[in-house]
Amino acid sequence: LELREKELEKYKDMKLERKDGRRVYVNANIGGTVDLGPMLARGADGIGLFRTEFLFLDRDDLPGEEEQFQIYKEVVEKVGDRPVVIRTVDIGSDKKPEYLEFPEEINPAMGYRGIRISLNNKDFFKTQLRAILRASKFGNVKIMYPMISAIEEVRNANSVLRQSRLELLEEDVEIGDPEIGIMIEVPSAVAMVRELAEEVDFLSIGTNDLVQYTLAVDRTNEKIKDQFTPYHPAILRMITRVAAAGREFDIPVAMCGEAAGDKLLIPFWLGIGIDQLSMSPVSILPAKETINKWLNRDKTELIQKVLQMPTVAEIQYYLSRRE
Amino acid sequence: LELREKELEKYKDMKLERKDGRRVYVNANIGGTVDLGPMLARGADGIGLFRTEFLFLDRDDLPGEEEQFQIYKEVVEKVGDRPVVIRTVDIGSDKKPEYLEFPEEINPAMGYRGIRISLNNKDFFKTQLRAILRASKFGNVKIMYPMISAIEEVRNANSVLRQSRLELLEEDVEIGDPEIGIMIEVPSAVAMVRELAEEVDFLSIGTNDLVQYTLAVDRTNEKIKDQFTPYHPAILRMITRVAAAGREFDIPVAMCGEAAGDKLLIPFWLGIGIDQLSMSPVSILPAKETINKWLNRDKTELIQKVLQMPTVAEIQYYLSRRE
Ligand SMILES: [Mg+2]
Ligand SMILES: [Mg+2]
Repeated sequence: LELREKELEKYKDMKLERKDGRRVYVNANIGGTVDLGPMLARGADGIGLFRTEFLFLDRDDLPGEEEQFQIYKEVVEKVGDRPVVIRTVDIGSDKKPEYLEFPEEINPAMGYRGIRISLNNKDFFKTQLRAILRASKFGNVKIMYPMISAIEEVRNANSVLRQSRLELLEEDVEIGDPEIGIMIEVPSAVAMVRELAEEVDFLSIGTNDLVQYTLAVDRTNEKIKDQFTPYHPAILRMITRVAAAGREFDIPVAMCGEAAGDKLLIPFWLGIGIDQLSMSPVSILPAKETINKWLNRDKTELIQKVLQMPTVAEIQYYLSRRE
Repeated sequence: LELREKELEKYKDMKLERKDGRRVYVNANIGGTVDLGPMLARGADGIGLFRTEFLFLDRDDLPGEEEQFQIYKEVVEKVGDRPVVIRTVDIGSDKKPEYLEFPEEINPAMGYRGIRISLNNKDFFKTQLRAILRASKFGNVKIMYPMISAIEEVRNANSVLRQSRLELLEEDVEIGDPEIGIMIEVPSAVAMVRELAEEVDFLSIGTNDLVQYTLAVDRTNEKIKDQFTPYHPAILRMITRVAAAGREFDIPVAMCGEAAGDKLLIPFWLGIGIDQLSMSPVSILPAKETINKWLNRDKTELIQKVLQMPTVAEIQYYLSRRE
């Protein structure tokens, strides 16, 4: 085990580059400042997903702008010039703070959550956006909206962002100019990905929810857990479409679900041109090892073969033999 | 009101045909024998969706083969030579009989339901398939599997069907040779529609669930009900893809969700080549009126325009002006 750790250690500071010079970034998903140590210790290239839910849970009231700003600033400063993708809050579903009103929900994962809550509570949303805009002065910050299912939501969110920016400028508060991105995790966002790509600076595929909705399989449901899998051909084809749209509109496509660190799938992600993989800190070093192995191998045949396969079993078997 | 009823009455026995002779069928969704009167009174061309759930609910044990057979036979005989699409049972989600074991489910609509239950209880599934096969001797019966999310499920279901058929033949029981179809209602089935089309005799789009999963909007959730809409461009594009696969593999594509009877959407369905619309009996006559109006108009421009529109509002406005 120690030997294995030593072996992985050498990837910590390794920059991963394709032959043509394009870099592949291995980023961290973090859920709070507590994850900063572990991610830096493993040489994460940045934060691909900063989940801000922890700020909103286990408390009696909404966190104010100043409180949020201080935390965002702390994270941004601690990672230096590495990029930090701050996702606006994705509460609802299994995370419902008591100070907000939620409806009775029979299927909360397909309910009042994420950007739907933010757009329905503009002041609340503005507070978070103002805090992020202020923190963006201190580093390389990007803003990401969760649970986007329609282009109207992106436009509405961007309009609240514009208002927040104008207000801050009028108040003579210094702000940065963060890039704007969206999660691709609802199936309709895949169907609309070309139009969505025109509205934003980057896309980030959330495989957990994308798999869940696309297969209609709740990933917490023990009885059907075998059916929850990113190896499903529908998922791989849809993700390939997202990657193609990123290329067409010349914006980066990242991935931040658990599948981003999946050893067997990494060659596929690299092959379709996903150059930013974000994962929990513990997965970073093994992922870098796999990326390093595959980075400059020809993946054309692998991609072609996988995209033709109609079943999970064939895909899984084929990928496991390519290891 | 009476005048309106008179006006609609004239469509009751009208056969709807395209210029090239292809017929458009307006079928009924039924939930039991009680719906046979209303559907026949409105001149339904057949039963596009026979929901068999009622047989399995509000009772203490599974319905046996004979009991099921008698009911299927009654339905089949009452509608004469009209086609009857019998959907194998889609329990689970909000319909959970006590004699089956269900897991605790946080999101039951994305849970243990439909074909997942049937494939997990082969005897139970076989009982229903045997009853349908026997009833198919008495009319034009088709079998349809609900909640298909992967090609493996179709193959497994067909293998149980083959076993059931062989058993019945060995027992010298007379059976028919029903066509086999699947519901297209889970987003992954749209992504895999070309492969699925090769496995079956027909497809039937279930718009209610397809909208729900594709947009991640539970259609029973009051708080977000405005976001549940078949006018979403992602839905119309996905359905267009399904229709195209039907043409490519030369199998019929039907529709059996509520949107099948939507006055504004009917021109779109006809334009992309969906020739079998199934709806609740009360919607049949108004739908026939709209179909008759649009049947031989050129819909090329309408389809092209709608498929380019990126928002619900634009699509809804455009279609409402075409009325
Ligand atoms: Mg998510
Ligand atoms: Mg359904």
